Amino acid sequence: MARVLTPRTEDYPRWYQDVIAKAQLAENGPVRGTMVIRPTGYALWERMQAELDSRIKAAGAENAYFPLFIPEAYLTREAEHVEGFSPELAVVTHAGGKQLAEPVVVRPTSETVIGESMAKWVSSYRDLPLLLNQWANVVRWELRPRVFLRTSEFLWQEGHTAHATEADARAYARKILHETYEDFMVNVLAIPVVVGRKTAAERFAGGTNTLTLEAMTGDGKALQMGTSHELGQNFARAFDISYSSAAGTVEHAWTTSWGVSTRMLGGLIMCHGDDQGLRVPPRLAPIQAYVMVVKDGDGVREAATKLRDALRDAGVRVALDDRVETPFGRRAVDAELKGYPVRVEVGPRDLADGNAVVVRRRDGGKTPTPVADVVGAVRAALDADQQALYDEATAFRESRTTEVATLAEAIEAAAEGWVRVPWSAVGEAGEAKANQSAVSVRC
Amino acid sequence: MARVLTPRTEDYPRWYQDVIAKAQLAENGPVRGTMVIRPTGYALWERMQAELDSRIKAAGAENAYFPLFIPEAYLTREAEHVEGFSPELAVVTHAGGKQLAEPVVVRPTSETVIGESMAKWVSSYRDLPLLLNQWANVVRWELRPRVFLRTSEFLWQEGHTAHATEADARAYARKILHETYEDFMVNVLAIPVVVGRKTAAERFAGGTNTLTLEAMTGDGKALQMGTSHELGQNFARAFDISYSSAAGTVEHAWTTSWGVSTRMLGGLIMCHGDDQGLRVPPRLAPIQAYVMVVKDGDGVREAATKLRDALRDAGVRVALDDRVETPFGRRAVDAELKGYPVRVEVGPRDLADGNAVVVRRRDGGKTPTPVADVVGAVRAALDADQQALYDEATAFRESRTTEVATLAEAIEAAAEGWVRVPWSAVGEAGEAKANQSAVSVRC
Ligand SMILES: [Zn+2]
Ligand SMILES: [Zn+2]
Repeated sequence: MARVLTPRTEDYPRWYQDVIAKAQLAENGPVRGTMVIRPTGYALWERMQAELDSRIKAAGAENAYFPLFIPEAYLTREAEHVEGFSPELAVVTHAGGKQLAEPVVVRPTSETVIGESMAKWVSSYRDLPLLLNQWANVVRWELRPRVFLRTSEFLWQEGHTAHATEADARAYARKILHETYEDFMVNVLAIPVVVGRKTAAERFAGGTNTLTLEAMTGDGKALQMGTSHELGQNFARAFDISYSSAAGTVEHAWTTSWGVSTRMLGGLIMCHGDDQGLRVPPRLAPIQAYVMVVKDGDGVREAATKLRDALRDAGVRVALDDRVETPFGRRAVDAELKGYPVRVEVGPRDLADGNAVVVRRRDGGKTPTPVADVVGAVRAALDADQQALYDEATAFRESRTTEVATLAEAIEAAAEGWVRVPWSAVGEAGEAKANQSAVSVRC
Repeated sequence: MARVLTPRTEDYPRWYQDVIAKAQLAENGPVRGTMVIRPTGYALWERMQAELDSRIKAAGAENAYFPLFIPEAYLTREAEHVEGFSPELAVVTHAGGKQLAEPVVVRPTSETVIGESMAKWVSSYRDLPLLLNQWANVVRWELRPRVFLRTSEFLWQEGHTAHATEADARAYARKILHETYEDFMVNVLAIPVVVGRKTAAERFAGGTNTLTLEAMTGDGKALQMGTSHELGQNFARAFDISYSSAAGTVEHAWTTSWGVSTRMLGGLIMCHGDDQGLRVPPRLAPIQAYVMVVKDGDGVREAATKLRDALRDAGVRVALDDRVETPFGRRAVDAELKGYPVRVEVGPRDLADGNAVVVRRRDGGKTPTPVADVVGAVRAALDADQQALYDEATAFRESRTTEVATLAEAIEAAAEGWVRVPWSAVGEAGEAKANQSAVSVRC
């Protein structure tokens, strides 16, 4: 069989690009750094959105929508914020056939424009906490774009909250980190993320504390999957988000922001992909079971259709592939590329024995299964492989994480994966030195 | 009681703005013409999205995402398209700290950038039809913005499809018009839309036929709620969307596009709103039943909570308001403004008689109802009021539609509402004349 993908060991970045192209997940847009998310990729994003959105609502936040365009002057109100984002801004200077009196920036994130609204909506301690979220596109101009990982435009959710006290803000940033993000990443994406803090040098521009969730990719690197920031009173001061307390004093609020983006699609590919393509964890998968008519024959199509219906009735997300005019081998390769967790292959020979073949994407296992037992076998496989993907990723991470005692050892060992080293052996000077060796630090 | 809203008969546009502000649906953004959609307004949009998205998927279209930024050169490839949209474009000239070699436009619609992708993805008749949809923000600079109705940035879905034949494209544009849009507007929004064609003068820039759904607003005007366009082979030629036919010839595809937007929120307000605020049709409503603790008292909170749970278990979208520290009158006025279809008021006096009061937003009717019967009464009210809102809007539209025979009569009668006049009495010259009198024509 012809090689479909560059093997990971041969050229990992090339393998990543191959998966995205061959599984038809996405491609580059015409403007440099932008991307087109194709239906197969977007369906994964929609499932991520659905799972996250219900967790965000359970955490009490309400969805809203704020403008794409932000007055340039807003960004400059918080000094570190503008410094952090200036190099990445896209600026609209002409609109409606005229030059604009004041240029507007395309949002790189929405702390400022949401801060302006919060200031209007908050006046009393009774208005707090104010818990908002939006699903939106944002723009950060990228010089070295890479689909899903670093793109000039990406899709994300950004939560923005205001609280009466620092303790409340801190607790909420952690609640989102653990109950929304970590729970989703561990239990749906099957990715054993490590939860940590960013160092002062890598913190969000304008924030006081950045909490991060990091995954280990298949080449032993760290990928940031999401962040939750405490913003102190910085934005509350810049936008005057203040409230009268129960005691009658006027106080600035404490704010947070938190986001995850289409970058998670890159994490998904790199954590679970293998040399045959994507492996989608069952709980995420838009298509959990893919019923394939191998070729036409006595009762084959009918049996496949019945299995599709039975799986659907059992609550499995299922699709039927009866395109027998396309060679079966090609369709099977495509199903592997796209990472459907389970295939149910229905062909004349097996069916004559009363069987269909249940194929598991995770390990390639193929089990001829009596037709009457297929639904049960599929459900068991989905449960088992959700856990197995998580265990596999955890074992891989552990195998690529080294415990060391000194900074010098850490920099050397980081070439192979992750390193656990006491912060006392690093410090801010050590962090700068590690960065020079292309090693980044979480504490 | 103090007047909450400007009455419709006093100043209709002012009433519209009042509803949007007082029901906390939206407000103006800092950049002229943009809007902030607040949680109450966004929840309505989310329900619209959910109902439409399932119908779009049922029509076979798949969701994808295409870039916000479009090379300026793309728009000029279809001559009428660029002429139509040029005056409304927002242009990014600087990004990443530099002047761009080629300016990029912020999408006003995505025919061009999607056409470029379709050209790559279509090569054989087997690739057709190609049925795509995206949920996105678009920008059309507005000189006279009005929240929801005309905003410089708005949210919408835009479907884009390519077909092998003109007949297929025509049939699909009509399928979406009727099975997706009309079905949603009639059965969910309870708006008796009139389906028609736009005249050549009002057609989509670059299209060959524009089908439209129009609602009558509370002041007797027409509001376009959605459109479905046949684009002929214009975009297929401009972007070279071509395919090899079964016979082996190379042919240009036939494309369509279709969209509905946050403008529907304006239509919803203006079709069903009254002098107390919004009236949300039950099938749309994010909150169908609003259970209110009138004030604390023996078992009141417990009874209200039980009713909330019972309604939820019966499949009703329900919320509990037990903020007894806020005066009941203020909360009731707020509930009317927001248009919750049914309120269930639970207070000590009625509860002593074993009753709660079921209040219907549509006609203000209040019925003391034995607690055990509340769930049934609420469900019956939701069904009845969905239909009643539709019937009311239909009766209003009929009362404001006049049959006339000549253009002169038509222009005069149009001051009061809609006019039905034979197209033979209008024609293109007549249309121009009608436009001068601020009357627009559908055929
Ligand atoms: Zn202040
Ligand atoms: Zn061509």
